[in-house]
Amino acid sequence: MSGLDKLQHVRPAEIEARSFEIISAELAERGVVLDPENELVVKRVIHTSADFEYAGALEFSEHATAIGVEALRGGCSVVTDTKMAAAGINKRVLAKFGGGLHNFISDADVAAEAKERGLTRSAICMERAAALEKPLVYAVGNAPTALVRLYEMLEAGEMPVAPALIVGVPVGFVNVVESKELICGLDVPHIVARGRKGGSNVAAAIVNALLYLASGNARE
Amino acid sequence: MSGLDKLQHVRPAEIEARSFEIISAELAERGVVLDPENELVVKRVIHTSADFEYAGALEFSEHATAIGVEALRGGCSVVTDTKMAAAGINKRVLAKFGGGLHNFISDADVAAEAKERGLTRSAICMERAAALEKPLVYAVGNAPTALVRLYEMLEAGEMPVAPALIVGVPVGFVNVVESKELICGLDVPHIVARGRKGGSNVAAAIVNALLYLASGNARE
Repeated sequence: MSGLDKLQHVRPAEIEARSFEIISAELAERGVVLDPENELVVKRVIHTSADFEYAGALEFSEHATAIGVEALRGGCSVVTDTKMAAAGINKRVLAKFGGGLHNFISDADVAAEAKERGLTRSAICMERAAALEKPLVYAVGNAPTALVRLYEMLEAGEMPVAPALIVGVPVGFVNVVESKELICGLDVPHIVARGRKGGSNVAAAIVNALLYLASGNARE
Repeated sequence: MSGLDKLQHVRPAEIEARSFEIISAELAERGVVLDPENELVVKRVIHTSADFEYAGALEFSEHATAIGVEALRGGCSVVTDTKMAAAGINKRVLAKFGGGLHNFISDADVAAEAKERGLTRSAICMERAAALEKPLVYAVGNAPTALVRLYEMLEAGEMPVAPALIVGVPVGFVNVVESKELICGLDVPHIVARGRKGGSNVAAAIVNALLYLASGNARE
């Protein structure tokens, strides 16, 4: 089994710490200096994607990280546009602060209403979340239509309670870039991955980074 | 709401088809010619990541796509290393062919055994899957340690039934590249993303592409 000789011997508990060391070193090599306020969020996204492009692509509204951390620490719940993002979020830490996770995508009435109104299920899910009438972290990793619906509701004054934070990181080719630009133009706390890239894994990584910061353990 | 003017008007049902058109056009612009046998798998990974690097990074063993399609069509089940990959796989289509989804990561005894033996939970999960003694599609999108454990078991003759297919696309910085090289050196059908990139979303996208090909509808 000589192929195994090439493996680094790193204990399971140390893999993540070693990964973050490598990320920090390579960012330094590239001459990238991250805003200390958002540094741990950016690094966790790079950790989850192995894609250093995020060092430049992630856009934070003023104090977005601190605002998100404070909201989650105060028991704010999270809504996602996909089950995959929901699966990736650390529910244990979220629950520790009193927060829960909402995801409406599989609800039968969501599919029916989406079909009837010619909208995506993800857009309807954002309406369902808004109807809860409580502050939420909206984590959108897949559907630009979800971001567009949030924008429309906010612009039309149709959201009784504004989002605590919008994590806007859908991925793809149709209206993805545009949907993110819409969110960046809003006066609502947001963390957005500009460009085409993103994903449910990126959305989950951002929410988890905020949760770990809220726990005082940025690599929990 | 002038920001909305920039959006393309694409009906929900047409978003994916339009995305694949854009991907095909941009691959052509880049002069990339994909192997027709694996083309739809590669395109679905680009669709899920917006990352054209996968056009060059995905490595297929001989007839890996056809082998995976045939296995799933025959009712082969899938095991994943994370709940996130499990969440992203189309269980409806998988079940249509008789296949199920295994994921052992949350089992209490997995965590206990991992701690006791100094292994990762993901590595133990691969042992649990092997102990089922049936052909499986092993979809690994996160943990290189899962791939390493598969390699060790195969090399030591400890797998009573060989994998139908290994989807080896973990992401990260510690032993990720090396774990994939190990799998590429095996005489076992595999689809591997060479390099650091990958992810649970990529693992799910590959399995879904195979499922849609098995259904005769590559964009179902």
